Parts: sequence; structure tokens; C-alpha cells
Amino acid sequence: MNVCPLPSTGDDRVLLGHGAGGRLSADLLTGHVLPALGSAADGPLEDAAPLPGDDTLVMTTDAFVVSPLFFPGGDIGILAVNGTVNDLAMRGARPLALTVALVIEEGLGLAELDAALVSLGKAAGEARVPVVAGDTKVVGRGHADRLFITTTGIGRRLPELSPSATRARPGDAVLLSGPIGAHGTAVLSVREDLGFATDITSDTRPLHRMVQALTPLGSHVHTLRDPTRGGLAAALNEIARDSRVCVRIEEPALPVPRQVAGACDLMGLDPLHVANEGCMVAFIAPDHADEALRLMRALPEGQDATRVGEVTDGPAGRVVLRTLVGAERLVDMPLGEQLPRIC
Amino acid sequence: MNVCPLPSTGDDRVLLGHGAGGRLSADLLTGHVLPALGSAADGPLEDAAPLPGDDTLVMTTDAFVVSPLFFPGGDIGILAVNGTVNDLAMRGARPLALTVALVIEEGLGLAELDAALVSLGKAAGEARVPVVAGDTKVVGRGHADRLFITTTGIGRRLPELSPSATRARPGDAVLLSGPIGAHGTAVLSVREDLGFATDITSDTRPLHRMVQALTPLGSHVHTLRDPTRGGLAAALNEIARDSRVCVRIEEPALPVPRQVAGACDLMGLDPLHVANEGCMVAFIAPDHADEALRLMRALPEGQDATRVGEVTDGPAGRVVLRTLVGAERLVDMPLGEQLPRIC
Repeated sequence: MNVCPLPSTGDDRVLLGHGAGGRLSADLLTGHVLPALGSAADGPLEDAAPLPGDDTLVMTTDAFVVSPLFFPGGDIGILAVNGTVNDLAMRGARPLALTVALVIEEGLGLAELDAALVSLGKAAGEARVPVVAGDTKVVGRGHADRLFITTTGIGRRLPELSPSATRARPGDAVLLSGPIGAHGTAVLSVREDLGFATDITSDTRPLHRMVQALTPLGSHVHTLRDPTRGGLAAALNEIARDSRVCVRIEEPALPVPRQVAGACDLMGLDPLHVANEGCMVAFIAPDHADEALRLMRALPEGQDATRVGEVTDGPAGRVVLRTLVGAERLVDMPLGEQLPRIC
Repeated sequence: MNVCPLPSTGDDRVLLGHGAGGRLSADLLTGHVLPALGSAADGPLEDAAPLPGDDTLVMTTDAFVVSPLFFPGGDIGILAVNGTVNDLAMRGARPLALTVALVIEEGLGLAELDAALVSLGKAAGEARVPVVAGDTKVVGRGHADRLFITTTGIGRRLPELSPSATRARPGDAVLLSGPIGAHGTAVLSVREDLGFATDITSDTRPLHRMVQALTPLGSHVHTLRDPTRGGLAAALNEIARDSRVCVRIEEPALPVPRQVAGACDLMGLDPLHVANEGCMVAFIAPDHADEALRLMRALPEGQDATRVGEVTDGPAGRVVLRTLVGAERLVDMPLGEQLPRIC
């Protein structure tokens, strides 16, 4: 009997998809990173972690490797600040301080470095968070791709709020603070190997003021998350898993700008999988959803806030989409290989 | 009249030397990074920065890009923990928590990633500091060199100590906790383009317990610094600059292991410029120097602690070496291009 050999899955090496925020990323995290670090691999993974001994302080870190460095609506510098400020905000914290570590490829133009750093400094100023420490390393040509920035943030939790990926409950309204899909399609639109032109611009912006605006709702704010890598699909799947609930979203309610939808069609992407850098999804106790929408819409960054779904008592860990024609389809965690280096 | 054009200095691009911890690094920092971030470019640059609003907490960040990833006596994982723990310790702080951000080159073997991460986890366990948050990015082949790790640490200052690069005073004894030059020469010894074999091993180790052991000396501990990139020469020059003092070290007292001296001779390096990852220099009020040496020598990591010089009332900002024959020579800040990617 002949036996077909299994094709090599390449699973003894790191693949691009391991970094894209989807199922492969989760595999790398739970199968390799967390066990090696002695961390519990089955606990909820939040956007920021409380400090041991003082859980009013939370910390988060992100490596930014976006390519190209400059794209419509933003650049690596502004992304490095807003991404970190937003991870703190999703735990109900206001940013206290940032650190910035640069890895620079030899030969990068100082003018480009300056432009990225000035943008970073400006974004930090606008978010009113100081950069307190930094590090600069230079590696030889071909050993990095121009510039990587790792930002770490520390924040103090607003005492009124205690959002967590574990606190979504059946009945919760699922709100979205703005349209989805702009960041990922803006970055891809200027990637040289795709090279089509649109006027889609990244939605990168800090979200901590909008979170602060929700403090009157107190503990009725159950869960906050910014749907970055892996898009809204990944964010909702993580929340459904960590809260052990079912999330149903309504396709007609999803705010996908026409141009984003067109670009996604062209590239064969699902807008639900595309990274965002300036919107958040909020799970709010049902009786307080309208108030939450009102508070969010009062700010420029939340003016298009809208309700997109709810938490049901369906199977735990599942995310379903009710389509335009009333059918339901499963929203999977993206596998993850389609959108590398989007942030 | 003919005018010779000036040769291009390449100063519109980032050079390898900009990352080596010497004068070029300082130029990049004060000429580009700090102004862009809106930070004061003339203040003292310490190993870790106090948190705004709570100066009992300090933060530090470091990007580790060492090549190769594994070298005699250590690897990138252990370096990423010890380097950060030590930067906190140099401000008199014990480590509370670490964050870890990985940038992985597509194709890195998972076995190598695991080995580096297990080593990182083990080092964190030994220093009793938890890794509370992390991030993982993957970039395409040729867009990074295998693995970069950025570690950020937060620590709480020991109330007894307030060491600072600005507090060295004339009369202070300059102590060194152990021999110098091992880390840099160990890494270079296995770089493929040098490829000579020695049995020099990196001195990487955490130093926070030794700092804690100095608490009985209280404010008599003026300055602590781990002489990493740029070596002892850079550390002493920074302290002389920030404290506005003159530092004199005695060549016969410098603990340079015979094998390190031989390797440096072979490579044309000055052991004073070579990175260390497991020793510290301490500036101690003169009447308490012997007690400091006794406390340091009581621990394995300080068993070879020794006095190497003193602070004099000579010209501010100057570091001089009294040679074996009694002559004095200036110890310059290394220019910085000779030892890239040593940490």
C-alpha cells in the first residue's frame, strides 16, 4: 500500500502568520511563549496587565513593525503612541508614562527617523503622556527593515471602571465607536506590491478620552477592546472565549465605509479581519447602552458610535453574524496570514 | 581658486556606530531622539526614570539585538532579563514586573525560539520578577535578524538608597564589583567573521541583590552604573559629565582577566570600551568604601569587588587613567563603531 507523505506544514519554523493576530498567533502564544515564561496559558489575555502588588497600575507593550513607515493618515510614530495608549484605555486606565525602544537599520535616512520621532513626540503630547525612558539600537543593513519601535505604557486605572475580556454577559449590547477597516486597507493601499491608490486614511487615534467619558456608567461597562490585528473578528472571538458567551453581530449594522468595502473586495479581504487603530468595541449592560452611545457620540472620536449586536445565550465562545438576508454564519478567528506588518 | 569638496561624512544617515553606546550614540540621542520627543536634551541620562507622580517607581526599556543569539555564558533571553533588572537596580530599585516584546524573523526555528524564551523565563524566575505582558510580531525573511527582544521593567526604589549619575563627589571611592571585558569578548569570540575560540564566557547576571546588600550604607551610596555598551569608559565619562567631577582610575587596579586582555589585544580593542553585563561601578563616600567592599564581597556576584579609583577635584567631566608607569592619560568616550550588536 502506498501512503502519501503528509505535506510539510513548516510547523518547526515561525511563519509570517504567527504574527498576524489570528489562530496561528494564538498557537504561538499558548504553545510556546506563555509556557516558556511560566505564565498560565489558559487565562484570559487582556490588552494590559495589572502590576503585581498594585492593581491600580496596568502595563502593556507593543512592537511596531508597520511597513511602510509612512502611510495615509499616519506613520509608525503616531501608531506607536496611540496603540499603547489604547491598550491601556481598554483596561479602563489613563496613560501615565511611555517608554520607547528603537531598532534602526543602518542607512535609514536621519530625516525619516526625525519625521517618525517628531510624529511620536507630537502624538504623546496630544495624549498628554510623557516618554520617560528609551533605548536606541542600530543593526546592519538587511538585518532589520528600516525602523521598529517598541512602546511600553503604564497607566492608572480609573476607579469607576473595571472592564475585562471576561465580563461580557448575555444581554449586553455590543457597541462600536466608529467605522472599521480603514487602517489595514490604508496601509495595504501603499504597499509597493499592491500599489493601488485610494483616499482611505488610517483611523489611528487615542481612545482614552472616550473611555474616560464612560466613567458615569461605572461597572455597567463590561468589556472594552480595540480591534487591531485580526480585526473585529479576532476581538469578538477573544471576548466570546474569555467571557464564555456567544456574540451575535448584525451585518446591516456594521459600519464599513464604501471605499473600504471596495478595497477589501479587490484584495479578497474580509473587513472583519482588517486591523483598526482608532475604534473600540464596548460591551455594555443593556439598560445603559443608549447612555453609552450618547457619551461616545459627544466626542469627535466617537461621533459615529453605533450598536452592532448583542451577547446571546448561545454556545459559549461562538461569534455569529446575521447577514443582510437574515441567515446566520459563523465569524471565525482569522487564521492570520493575510495581513502581515499592518502595525 | 579650486576648493576641495568636503568628503561626505554620511551624516544624513544612521550609521552602525550610532547604536554602539559611544559618542555617536550620544549625538543621535541629543541631536535627534530627545528633541523630537520634547525631552530635555541636557539633563542627566540615568539607567531608569522615575514615574511622573510617583517617584518611588522607576521604569527602563532596552531592545536586545545581540548576534549571535546564543554565546558562551548566555543568550539573548537571559540578557533581556538581566539587562533590564540591572538598569532598575542602578537606580536603587528592586524589579516588580517585566514586559517582553518579540520581533521574529520568518523562518526562525521554533526550537531556537523556545530555547531563548525558556532561558528568559528562567532568568526572570531567578530574579523573582514576573513577565506580566508581551507582544509578538513576525516580519518577513531578511527584514530582521532572527530575533529581537525588547524588555521593559518597572521597579520600586529601595527607600534607603538614592543613587544617581549626578551624585558623584570629590573624594568618592570608585569601586568595581567584578572583572571587566568578558561579555563583549565572549560574544565577539563566536561571531562567525572573527571565529577564534576562547573559553571566555559572558558575565551576564542580575545585580539587584548586590544593590540591596548596600542598603545599610544609605545615602553614602552616591552613584551606581552597570558598564554595558561603551564599557567602563562610557559609564565613567557619563558619570563625570552628569556629576561635573573628574574621575581617576588606576590601571594596576583594573580587573581585566588575562584571557580578556589577550582577546582584546588580538582584536585591537580597549578592554575599557568592551561591554559588561554582570558588574557594576559604585561611587561611595570615602569613609564607607571599605564597608561597601565587604558587603559586595559577601555575595557571589561581588566576590571580586575591588577599588579602582577615586573622584578628584580635577577638571569636571574628565576621566583619567594612571598607568602602570605612573603617567596619566585621558579615557575618552568611545566613538562607538567598534562593537555593534553586543547586547
